[in-house]
Amino acid sequence: MGKAQFQAMRQQSHGISDGVLARRIQNVAARTEAMLESLLTERAEGSEIMRPALLVEAMRYAALGGGKRFRPFLVVETARMLGVTGVGPVRVGAAVEMVHAYSLVHDDLPAMDDDDTRRGKPTVHKAYDDAMGVLAGDALLTLAFAVLADKRTVRSAETRLQLVRLLAEGAGIGGMVGGQLLDLAAEGRYPAFSTGLLPEDSVIRIQSMKTGALIATACAMGTALGHATARQKLAVDHYAQRLGLAFQIKDDLLDVEGDAAAVGKATGKDAAAGKATFVSLRGVEGARDLLAGVTQEAAAALQPFGRRRETLQTLLAFNMNRTS
Amino acid sequence: MGKAQFQAMRQQSHGISDGVLARRIQNVAARTEAMLESLLTERAEGSEIMRPALLVEAMRYAALGGGKRFRPFLVVETARMLGVTGVGPVRVGAAVEMVHAYSLVHDDLPAMDDDDTRRGKPTVHKAYDDAMGVLAGDALLTLAFAVLADKRTVRSAETRLQLVRLLAEGAGIGGMVGGQLLDLAAEGRYPAFSTGLLPEDSVIRIQSMKTGALIATACAMGTALGHATARQKLAVDHYAQRLGLAFQIKDDLLDVEGDAAAVGKATGKDAAAGKATFVSLRGVEGARDLLAGVTQEAAAALQPFGRRRETLQTLLAFNMNRTS
Repeated sequence: MGKAQFQAMRQQSHGISDGVLARRIQNVAARTEAMLESLLTERAEGSEIMRPALLVEAMRYAALGGGKRFRPFLVVETARMLGVTGVGPVRVGAAVEMVHAYSLVHDDLPAMDDDDTRRGKPTVHKAYDDAMGVLAGDALLTLAFAVLADKRTVRSAETRLQLVRLLAEGAGIGGMVGGQLLDLAAEGRYPAFSTGLLPEDSVIRIQSMKTGALIATACAMGTALGHATARQKLAVDHYAQRLGLAFQIKDDLLDVEGDAAAVGKATGKDAAAGKATFVSLRGVEGARDLLAGVTQEAAAALQPFGRRRETLQTLLAFNMNRTS
Repeated sequence: MGKAQFQAMRQQSHGISDGVLARRIQNVAARTEAMLESLLTERAEGSEIMRPALLVEAMRYAALGGGKRFRPFLVVETARMLGVTGVGPVRVGAAVEMVHAYSLVHDDLPAMDDDDTRRGKPTVHKAYDDAMGVLAGDALLTLAFAVLADKRTVRSAETRLQLVRLLAEGAGIGGMVGGQLLDLAAEGRYPAFSTGLLPEDSVIRIQSMKTGALIATACAMGTALGHATARQKLAVDHYAQRLGLAFQIKDDLLDVEGDAAAVGKATGKDAAAGKATFVSLRGVEGARDLLAGVTQEAAAALQPFGRRRETLQTLLAFNMNRTS
């Protein structure tokens, strides 16, 4: 592509309407739901192995019928931006969503955040018991790896291994689980343990691990499925890191601004827990400015993808404007 | 090999002395320990990713310095029976041991079996807190998959994927986690849920899933590393299923016969919990007969491996005679 052509392309509008974005989100959510439905069954996929019905029921309770399916959307749309569609990205999205669901079930346990409701219904340990919460989470995490390693997901063995490695890294101690520990530590639960970080660095590190890592993993899985070049992978990672941060800042803003009914959980909870947030550190205006800056950086990272970036780019605006 | 030669080989003694077996067990345990030491560090293997020190510490507390390393032994010795040695089987053994350690940490939680001590020291949730028990377990499970998918484990991508699938199956809802749920259900925790099985079938199913699945997985991983034929895989699986059963029957016998100091945990606990065991169903003599029969079947399954079967075969006698 010549320089003039590239600049002309940059000057085009690359957004899609909110309505189109909403339909795409709904479309991926519906396909994810159907995939989870077919994976969370008493008989294992392509196998004679039977699973205990009660545990399958608890896993379905945890994973079906709720959530924005934000991470599957990132997998599917990142792959689509790179020209790859079909069932593969949906299977990978379902695997990531299982891991997201497991993390919520474990986080909600009395041992952790002790939440009674999630997405407007009793949490798994409330609907069943604490043991079921532990086990349903464990089973969802384990099944996610089985789905990724299955040849139905993508033919290339190397790609499947990449997916397994990405998930293990993003969900593990250097990512989501480690972030959850740091989040608990930030509440003062482990007084002898200090990360030695300044408050804002600590908030950024917790965000980048606890929620950011799985968001970045979802996008990275999309690049793996889409046979991205190293340069493209780097660009998507820049986008994903900032997208995750932007979502967290927006969540912090909604935590003080939103009304509980719209947000779907108790608001002001972080403040009540004495946790530092982007709002507590910078104030509402400061957090809004940070959100705008981070959003702009995320958009800039997508420029090399030309017109194909439209969905992931519009997602940034969607986040800035969402009310829940 | 001619028929006469084969029969001559069969007539040879294929055992090793208890002393040699004990040294082999110790050797694999030491190599597993060293591998776990090098994998459970603040800096991720071959990566810049830093892990929260406190969570690494809890994972090390859970996984290092204890246990017979029985599952790693099965991986290493099955692979060796098929002619494969080196670091690969030790890495795979360490991954399986992480999963075993995670299952113990989660099983010990107050939500599950509520145990205060393990291997003579406080359980993870006692040494830290319940949240750390949940998270250290989650992190160990996740890291196991990262280890298997890493090219340092074995060069062949297909073999690594096989290992990931085997672990996900053996540790998941159709295996270990499902078995744990059935075990809790057998205590009467979920009265509305029935598997419809007769008592002994139920005990066998719980055993085959809760502990047998990971034992069979360890052996199957050894066959994957050892490039076993389909026939060899089947033979090893027959052995592994019966070995797991034999260990459970022996554990049930020790539970009523052993003294607590030697067994390392409270004895008579299953009986106190009102759980059916092979001993409660068949009596001590009946359970001993069953153990002898199952052990013989396991030994028969190993015959095709000739002299190379000596270690795995002697393990069967070792189990029959162990006092803890």
